[in-house]
Amino acid sequence: MSGNNQLRQSVVLKRRPSGEPSPGDFEIVQDLIPEPKAGEVVTRTLWLSIDPYMRGRLREEQTYAVAIQIGEVMTGETVGEVIASADPRFAVGDVVVGSRGWQTHSVTPGDRLVKVPAGVPSSTYLGVLGMPGATAYAGVTEIIKPRKGQTIVISAASGAVGSVAGQLAKRAGARVVGVAGGAEKCLWVQDNLGFDDCVDHRSIDLAFELKTACPDGIDGYFENVGGAVQAAVFDQLNRHARVAMCGMVSQYNEDVFPPGPNLGFVVGKAVLIQGFIVSDRPARLTEWREMAAPWVADGSLIYREDIHEGLEQAPAALAGILGGQNFGKLLVRVGHDKG
Amino acid sequence: MSGNNQLRQSVVLKRRPSGEPSPGDFEIVQDLIPEPKAGEVVTRTLWLSIDPYMRGRLREEQTYAVAIQIGEVMTGETVGEVIASADPRFAVGDVVVGSRGWQTHSVTPGDRLVKVPAGVPSSTYLGVLGMPGATAYAGVTEIIKPRKGQTIVISAASGAVGSVAGQLAKRAGARVVGVAGGAEKCLWVQDNLGFDDCVDHRSIDLAFELKTACPDGIDGYFENVGGAVQAAVFDQLNRHARVAMCGMVSQYNEDVFPPGPNLGFVVGKAVLIQGFIVSDRPARLTEWREMAAPWVADGSLIYREDIHEGLEQAPAALAGILGGQNFGKLLVRVGHDKG
Repeated sequence: MSGNNQLRQSVVLKRRPSGEPSPGDFEIVQDLIPEPKAGEVVTRTLWLSIDPYMRGRLREEQTYAVAIQIGEVMTGETVGEVIASADPRFAVGDVVVGSRGWQTHSVTPGDRLVKVPAGVPSSTYLGVLGMPGATAYAGVTEIIKPRKGQTIVISAASGAVGSVAGQLAKRAGARVVGVAGGAEKCLWVQDNLGFDDCVDHRSIDLAFELKTACPDGIDGYFENVGGAVQAAVFDQLNRHARVAMCGMVSQYNEDVFPPGPNLGFVVGKAVLIQGFIVSDRPARLTEWREMAAPWVADGSLIYREDIHEGLEQAPAALAGILGGQNFGKLLVRVGHDKG
Repeated sequence: MSGNNQLRQSVVLKRRPSGEPSPGDFEIVQDLIPEPKAGEVVTRTLWLSIDPYMRGRLREEQTYAVAIQIGEVMTGETVGEVIASADPRFAVGDVVVGSRGWQTHSVTPGDRLVKVPAGVPSSTYLGVLGMPGATAYAGVTEIIKPRKGQTIVISAASGAVGSVAGQLAKRAGARVVGVAGGAEKCLWVQDNLGFDDCVDHRSIDLAFELKTACPDGIDGYFENVGGAVQAAVFDQLNRHARVAMCGMVSQYNEDVFPPGPNLGFVVGKAVLIQGFIVSDRPARLTEWREMAAPWVADGSLIYREDIHEGLEQAPAALAGILGGQNFGKLLVRVGHDKG
């Protein structure tokens, strides 16, 4: 069997952070790698996904998902290699997605696992072909519904979700304007992702820069950040604009959330604002993987990964993504592939 | 012909109000009743509708409709009796809706007019069977989509729109909770309209009263007022709640709009917020009239009118509706029916 006398490392929550999480809010604990019970699969973690939503799990109060308790292993989606299986559908050596936890080894009911097919890098199942990609797909196709000639703005445009959302809006024929932090990201968004323009949210006059990039106003907005970017975009929305509310990462570290925009404009402009969580739409993930895998293979869907090495880097990586320090899909490499 | 040497009175904008409009912001001017040109119809005004949206027309900056200019006749929908017609579809004596203006007589292209059928009071074509009724119908059926067992909250519940919106949500099987100003309105909303409960927005602890009335949270909200009511309702929305943004009358007199709620909850709860303007959906008005006229006739759709006598009362009536002083659909009787 798998883990006899072999140790597993797990990152657990030591105390609830106030403001930006720091490595000292977590600690690493060790135990024996468990044996799988009937129906379970034990995996050795290859990749751990770090995503902004994780900050919400560190809060005392519950949001749409259950809070992490002190002493509990941090949650996070992983890709792993099967090292022991009590589910006949999975064999040692299979690479699977669906296991969870900031840890070197996970035990997961087989029902929650999906095999990563050969031919795509397994890390893409956490990014462009994973939850972030499917999130972009759901938000763009179900909420924004971009049309030829419209102007669509994407915040956090170089991130795992934004980079896909903008490319999908481009495929629909829209003019696509990104918002990102810093010249390097903005250049990449324009030159590599093919957005029509990209505005640096650190500009002295963000509203002016946005207006210049969107001379005909804004018909659709993919919201990942909130705060000053949201305020500037909302002011420039056209009648019947459609807003996909995916995240508001600029405030995830705040203890008290700031007031938002006055919503009078929503009435007068007949604007749609729709929040969504991709886990409410599990079928979209499967659909997206089937649709987008060929685009990843032929290079027409661009993605970028920002890889940190070693499980112990996970807390710092989470702090970094909340501060916008990542450049592309943030991953922690926990173990190496045999290949 | 109609108006040879007869005078017409019109209320024009004298100066833009700051805060609550006052009668001194308007003045009455006189001119000769015009003759109709080809295709036009001249009507003698019977009823003038006073609606909160009119406050927006008094602002310098344009919202979704063109601002009223200084010296221009105030806009407003009227029911009138045809006194001269150069459109073969309309004859002297017909009672029609679709003419506009705070004035004793209007000239209107026949294409914009609809005859009020015999059998319903003509005033209902401005209220329960008019724009307010169709607004409630569109907001409830297209946006909130109430289902049996859900809890739906309606603000300005005793008003022209809210009273219909709540009755429609009741017909759909929902638990319906109104919010209104004062005990008299709240009692009427419960006893006459048949809402399950009604909360007085002047309560010392509105959030607590609302929570008591909505023990299972709020699944849908018909927004007419904004401000403190909006804040209390938004805090108690359930996951996947649906909000029809029809108006925010509590702030229409403000020179600078206050900040709104932080929109983080929209993401986490996957809430839909949809602004709408019924004039974007002209077909809904016709549909609504056909559907609801029998309900008005058989008494199963309850409505209430708050009637002011005389054109010169229109400015005070507008100030009153913005302060919530009306009780039911606010109308000015400008002329008397022959019948």
